[in-house]
Amino acid sequence: MLVLDLAGTFIFALSGAMAAMTHRLDLFGVLSLSFAAGNAGGITRDLIIGATPPAAIDDWRYLGVSLVAGLFTFGCAPLINRLSSPVLILDAGGLGLFAVSGATKALEYHLDPIPAMLLGMLTGIGGGVLRDVLVAEIPSVLRENLYAVAALAGAAVVVIGHGLGLPPTPTALAGAALCIGLRVISIRRGWQLPRASLPAPSPVDAPSVDRSKRP
Amino acid sequence: MLVLDLAGTFIFALSGAMAAMTHRLDLFGVLSLSFAAGNAGGITRDLIIGATPPAAIDDWRYLGVSLVAGLFTFGCAPLINRLSSPVLILDAGGLGLFAVSGATKALEYHLDPIPAMLLGMLTGIGGGVLRDVLVAEIPSVLRENLYAVAALAGAAVVVIGHGLGLPPTPTALAGAALCIGLRVISIRRGWQLPRASLPAPSPVDAPSVDRSKRP
Amino acid sequence: MLVLDLAGTFIFALSGAMAAMTHRLDLFGVLSLSFAAGNAGGITRDLIIGATPPAAIDDWRYLGVSLVAGLFTFGCAPLINRLSSPVLILDAGGLGLFAVSGATKALEYHLDPIPAMLLGMLTGIGGGVLRDVLVAEIPSVLRENLYAVAALAGAAVVVIGHGLGLPPTPTALAGAALCIGLRVISIRRGWQLPRASLPAPSPVDAPSVDRSKRP
Repeated sequence: MLVLDLAGTFIFALSGAMAAMTHRLDLFGVLSLSFAAGNAGGITRDLIIGATPPAAIDDWRYLGVSLVAGLFTFGCAPLINRLSSPVLILDAGGLGLFAVSGATKALEYHLDPIPAMLLGMLTGIGGGVLRDVLVAEIPSVLRENLYAVAALAGAAVVVIGHGLGLPPTPTALAGAALCIGLRVISIRRGWQLPRASLPAPSPVDAPSVDRSKRP
Repeated sequence: MLVLDLAGTFIFALSGAMAAMTHRLDLFGVLSLSFAAGNAGGITRDLIIGATPPAAIDDWRYLGVSLVAGLFTFGCAPLINRLSSPVLILDAGGLGLFAVSGATKALEYHLDPIPAMLLGMLTGIGGGVLRDVLVAEIPSVLRENLYAVAALAGAAVVVIGHGLGLPPTPTALAGAALCIGLRVISIRRGWQLPRASLPAPSPVDAPSVDRSKRP
Repeated sequence: MLVLDLAGTFIFALSGAMAAMTHRLDLFGVLSLSFAAGNAGGITRDLIIGATPPAAIDDWRYLGVSLVAGLFTFGCAPLINRLSSPVLILDAGGLGLFAVSGATKALEYHLDPIPAMLLGMLTGIGGGVLRDVLVAEIPSVLRENLYAVAALAGAAVVVIGHGLGLPPTPTALAGAALCIGLRVISIRRGWQLPRASLPAPSPVDAPSVDRSKRP
């Protein structure tokens, strides 16, 4: 399980490092975003369930894997650029692993089914959210075709299997497979969640400030 | 108390969903911002006082109320747009409820008076801050006329009443009323906190980066 | 130690207030960013090691010092503008103090050496990161010449000294001095970490959204 978790961290750390490089951050910025993207989901989950200090801080291997991914990206960005399609597939793998391990850990801490599903999803998407916030962009997961929904589906399989008393390992594998499959198919076919269009420039967004006052 | 807390969550979740729709996020983005805006204040408060897992995660009703608000907004945005003025008033109600319940919970966890006031305010404004950070904007509460000050005043009434040994329910009602009243009057009259003008484009902002190096 | 910690809070709070004023926030925005910049690093550290409620919330003096710094900046921004170079030096002092105190507190909570170093660095840089996120900018520490590296070096001295059984006070002083020295020299000489250039506009940034769909 730890190996799979570290593999997910590595993949997400790659995505953080690439985001840092497209924003022309320096080496420390690249390594920071590697660590943030690879571990923010797990750290948030651990803070919420009260498992302090979080594993990603307490176990140096998470840091090590993140730094290796960051340094690799820093040195070989053109290579990773060319591999972007395989990276998207690997990223789906990371998402599946994190969603499943997040839900499993939440159940171990005796959370109820719905909170456990939420935390599985949050473990999967948290890293990407912090990565995008740190480069001052709207998190892509909030716009992405079925990204979070796939994580939620994977976590749901784990939680339902736990509720039915199924053996944990095959359930976890099924959950990860469902998440990865959903994500890969949605990329291939361009599936999107519906998007509402507002009829006119909205003056609402309550509670809001008069935006014309902005400098 | 729980009913009032859930009512506050619903109102704030509406504001999160509206922000998501003005930024043209997809359905998941709308639901995420509903949950974030409705619950980030309470989650932050619970993490800070060590009440893990936070109630907004552990009790599925907070999630349920947030999702209902998000789906409702997704389906009926034009309606909510037209209701923007009532929504601002309702939002003042949510702020008052959250400020009071946040301060009350902090006192139950034996925090001192000043930290309890701070946490009441933070419970009230936290959701709006995360909502705006996630859409890459400066939080409107940092610019808004008397928004946080009203929350602080409501929390202060609860803390002072607790210190004087007054009965909790009327004190809480008085605190919520003060917060709501201040907020509504400040909207009506356009009250603003003072704003300092810097004499010239500032080169300081220490510690800072040479901004001309930005791509 | 508390006096030094509060001095660091004051310095960082000044930087938060200056950032708020360059973004033309109102008085509450200035005070909020003062508090966030002065205390976010310590609060994050305390949440991660499970020391709830965090000292910066529980002890009103942190709030008081932050508010004084914010009010002072609000009233005397031109003065602080003129002092920008001394402020940068003072800021290096704050960084050194926070890095050392963060690592020390992490060791007291029995964290391992590498996590303790990380937390020392995080204590030093956390305030500046939140300050910049709240004004919707990429954190300057992710681009800044040797800012975080200096904090890491200072924290490392504390952790190594602790491992060797050296007396804590001189070790802490040495760590702070190393951090401050590195930071001041890197400002004076314009030292920078390497920055990789991407060969072409990158389509990767996985997992990412099709950016052309943005409004």
